[in-house]
Amino acid sequence: MQITRPTFVVNKKQCVQNIAKIYSKTFAHQLIFRPHFKTHQSQEVGKWFQDFGVECITVSSVEMAVFFAQNGWKDITIAFPFNILEINAVNSINAEVQINLLVDSYETALFLTNNLTKKVGIFIEIDLFYGRSGILPSEITQISEIASLISESQIADFKGFLIHAGNTYTAETKAEVLAIHAKNLQHIKALKLEFQQKYKDIIVSYGDTPTASLANDFEGIDELRPGNFVYYDLMQQKIGSCFRTEIACSVLAPVVRIKRELGEIVLHSGAVHLSKDYILSPDGAKNFGEVYFVANDYKTIYYNSKAIIYSVSQEHALAKCDAEFAKKVKIGDLLAILPIHSCLTANLMKNNQIILA
Amino acid sequence: MQITRPTFVVNKKQCVQNIAKIYSKTFAHQLIFRPHFKTHQSQEVGKWFQDFGVECITVSSVEMAVFFAQNGWKDITIAFPFNILEINAVNSINAEVQINLLVDSYETALFLTNNLTKKVGIFIEIDLFYGRSGILPSEITQISEIASLISESQIADFKGFLIHAGNTYTAETKAEVLAIHAKNLQHIKALKLEFQQKYKDIIVSYGDTPTASLANDFEGIDELRPGNFVYYDLMQQKIGSCFRTEIACSVLAPVVRIKRELGEIVLHSGAVHLSKDYILSPDGAKNFGEVYFVANDYKTIYYNSKAIIYSVSQEHALAKCDAEFAKKVKIGDLLAILPIHSCLTANLMKNNQIILA
Repeated sequence: MQITRPTFVVNKKQCVQNIAKIYSKTFAHQLIFRPHFKTHQSQEVGKWFQDFGVECITVSSVEMAVFFAQNGWKDITIAFPFNILEINAVNSINAEVQINLLVDSYETALFLTNNLTKKVGIFIEIDLFYGRSGILPSEITQISEIASLISESQIADFKGFLIHAGNTYTAETKAEVLAIHAKNLQHIKALKLEFQQKYKDIIVSYGDTPTASLANDFEGIDELRPGNFVYYDLMQQKIGSCFRTEIACSVLAPVVRIKRELGEIVLHSGAVHLSKDYILSPDGAKNFGEVYFVANDYKTIYYNSKAIIYSVSQEHALAKCDAEFAKKVKIGDLLAILPIHSCLTANLMKNNQIILA
Repeated sequence: MQITRPTFVVNKKQCVQNIAKIYSKTFAHQLIFRPHFKTHQSQEVGKWFQDFGVECITVSSVEMAVFFAQNGWKDITIAFPFNILEINAVNSINAEVQINLLVDSYETALFLTNNLTKKVGIFIEIDLFYGRSGILPSEITQISEIASLISESQIADFKGFLIHAGNTYTAETKAEVLAIHAKNLQHIKALKLEFQQKYKDIIVSYGDTPTASLANDFEGIDELRPGNFVYYDLMQQKIGSCFRTEIACSVLAPVVRIKRELGEIVLHSGAVHLSKDYILSPDGAKNFGEVYFVANDYKTIYYNSKAIIYSVSQEHALAKCDAEFAKKVKIGDLLAILPIHSCLTANLMKNNQIILA
């Protein structure tokens, strides 16, 4: 196999280790493991989860649910506030596939109870102060009204509450992640206390890679839905969710220009390959990815010397090298870029990826 | 046609007007018009250029060159520093297709003269202080050495100099764009003075949408390569390259949640649809796109009331609405989002776009 242009590389062995790590934790804590497949969107990567006995998955769109249903998955949660325009697409999914939907408004819940022809589960999304979608836990009346509406319906099962603790992604330390998580557990306990008497079988489904990687207290949580951990990335490494060596994907990119006097290189790997997501370095500079030398096997990365991508345009990446890197790099070298946000990079590179055993 | 999920909409009539505007300018100034096809990457949009007699195009990767060559285009410039690993792909392009490559190092030029088996044109990329790829105009010795090497080769034609005036994209006013352009014209004249005696047939190929849209002096320039103008976007509107009404594309996105008390909406249209590119509003807030009501024809946009996207995650967009907007918007509405950077949005939505006549 000869790689000549930007290519997304998945390191299977490391992915399986990452899966094993989270699987073991969910097993030890008797949690349902429902990994989010939006990160990899790949049937092949999905099979590695099946090898651990995983049967329940999460996706972020109806389109992705249809894809995985067609590929044999039988229990799929669409963890995005249901878009009422896609009712026909949901009703058309094979009857034997269990679909769980998400609502965060009475209006959408009412639409569903009136228009579903397929039996589905419904979660109410709770917003634990991340501020994206979901209903605040203080809006008890609204939550109760939606819960009643769903549970009285013949076509929908009220499954419980779904939470994405997205504010852990802006945490800068493990301690911050754990502090956010501890507060969230308080709210979860209160929610269960409020609703579990009336709705005995409801569960709490909880997400996010930082918490899944770092926390060890899941009291009140029944199901875990992290996704990013299968690949991890530099954002997770910065938060402390993983070590750099646990990042299981990279973009192989050719060097097209060296400005040796400036210690800079130009790579073919731009916003259409990496995305424009970045993290800030301690000095406040934007970091769009870290660049390393890689062995001919395309997966043994040499972490001792690096370049940092400080700018991306559509196809170009510009990186500043350390001294050793600048000395050694050659035009035509294929280098490994560790991505900032692997979900977005994997999505962009869907049609140009290789999996290494 | 019923649209139910995020969809990229191309307004053909407006695109053709945008093409006509730049075509007329290149015609009036007797410039070769070699539009950049990286923006649309579409054979159908390409045909609208053919209707104006356009035969020469620009692309940003060997992959795109192969795609358009297979679709009948016969004169293609790959405006990216040549990646030596792709020599076989270039040598394999049909002999009757004229390919022009870009070099910005002696090393790559030497590799090409030694390894090309297909006759190609070669431009030397000049960096007029944008700081991406290209050789600074002060590096006369290096430029001369590369020019000699190419022109003495049997397999390559020395075509001249290629410049991307990318620093116009950070300009905030028309006056700034024109000031950057005026300085660039000085350097171009000096370059021609230096090299045109020895290399009589060389041309200067010049790019970027802001200059193509705003400038009226092209003395010393022979060829224009803008790309973005076919769609335009909010970044160009901010610079002053176009009016908002000239933006010829949008993302149709369904409303999934309304937080009326906060004047906020949640749309299904995230980083995998729009990209994470943003501009800054006058108050310093990030703007990932503007949201408008749209008629049932999906292209008549109502500009009188709007929401601004202040945050995107993988699939969600969060937008703040003006008062009228917040009053009128309903769950299940399909709204039109004007993108910040249409090249990245079009690339992400390649497989989910419709063209409206």
